[in-house]
Amino acid sequence: MNDVLPRRAHLITLEGGEGAGKSTALATVRDCLQAAGCTLVVSREPGGTPLAEQLRAMVLHSSRQDDADERLHPSAELLMVFAARAQHVAEVINPALQRGDWVLCDRFTDSSFAYQGGGRGLPVDWIADLERRVVGFVPGLTLWLDVPVALGRSRVQGRGGVPDAIEREHDAFFERVHAGFAARVAADPQRFVRIDASVPLEQMVAEVTRAVNAYLAQVRR
Amino acid sequence: MNDVLPRRAHLITLEGGEGAGKSTALATVRDCLQAAGCTLVVSREPGGTPLAEQLRAMVLHSSRQDDADERLHPSAELLMVFAARAQHVAEVINPALQRGDWVLCDRFTDSSFAYQGGGRGLPVDWIADLERRVVGFVPGLTLWLDVPVALGRSRVQGRGGVPDAIEREHDAFFERVHAGFAARVAADPQRFVRIDASVPLEQMVAEVTRAVNAYLAQVRR
Repeated sequence: MNDVLPRRAHLITLEGGEGAGKSTALATVRDCLQAAGCTLVVSREPGGTPLAEQLRAMVLHSSRQDDADERLHPSAELLMVFAARAQHVAEVINPALQRGDWVLCDRFTDSSFAYQGGGRGLPVDWIADLERRVVGFVPGLTLWLDVPVALGRSRVQGRGGVPDAIEREHDAFFERVHAGFAARVAADPQRFVRIDASVPLEQMVAEVTRAVNAYLAQVRR
Repeated sequence: MNDVLPRRAHLITLEGGEGAGKSTALATVRDCLQAAGCTLVVSREPGGTPLAEQLRAMVLHSSRQDDADERLHPSAELLMVFAARAQHVAEVINPALQRGDWVLCDRFTDSSFAYQGGGRGLPVDWIADLERRVVGFVPGLTLWLDVPVALGRSRVQGRGGVPDAIEREHDAFFERVHAGFAARVAADPQRFVRIDASVPLEQMVAEVTRAVNAYLAQVRR
């Protein structure tokens, strides 16, 4: 269970709670990699293949608070997220890495530890077992956009739109998600770069740019 | 992993390969239970809830042999089947058993051992771990309708209709499924009754009736 999984240097993932500025950071990382001449596949989880996107829709649109609909149980949510990941790894990530391309992914396995482990309270050893069996590797670099729950939530509420099944959760859930991310970073500090996402956007973009360029210099050395 | 899971006396499951006469056997078991005055929920897997039926459709209608469609990977298939099972257990099976009702299910966890374990070659210890985490119990009685692969296949082909993703598999797959069921029976001979499904239907119905009535007499003693 505590095997250290191999890193894939060309896989960079972005993690973070609601309202951390993940879209802006994603575009920043993409720009850095392209400026460095990397051939790049940009993807997201859950999702990234037609089947995985179908599973994503089922997970995010299950109406957990609407009695008329069937409640999605935490174990089923975890298994569907990993089923989507199995498709994504086999169909998109592995082929890209085998070609020598780079992959930039909006959320990856760390989100399962944070949301289904921290948030839903499912056993972390189960998630680690699924990670080992279904994925078998970790990213070379993971940027964790760290924003206090209250600030992130207030940014999301400013956006409007209909909240999905995750966004409808309460603050206590998001505090557990935040603690889940923090625990992942503490367990593997070499892979993660914590980005302070409470600062103004331009400052966050500068931090992300610095982190990615430092990583590229290190990988290509 | 080798924990013995508790049995649920009021849960009866039906297992078997293609063309074993499962529909007829299901009706026979239902009639026996109703004749004995049991309040009965009849269900099936994968499926049994709206979400689980959606997952069933995704598993059975993925066109594994059509290049235009995304191939469903074995790990994803296993995880989707267990996600459907998590919903089914939580929404249908557990509530029925808690009310004191009986549940008769067309396929259950043993099918995952046979199809995803035997057929697809996924590790049996993984499936046992999922069984322990997601289900946590085994049926009181499981009837295995045992029919030689060639005979079962010839019966299914006689039916016509468009074969689903499982039915399109080759004989070697179904031989592995058959061996998977046989291994399950060997590992827990007290729970299983093997029904010879190669005999004429009336004879099989008589065997099933005998097995169910013997079980009822034992449970109610």
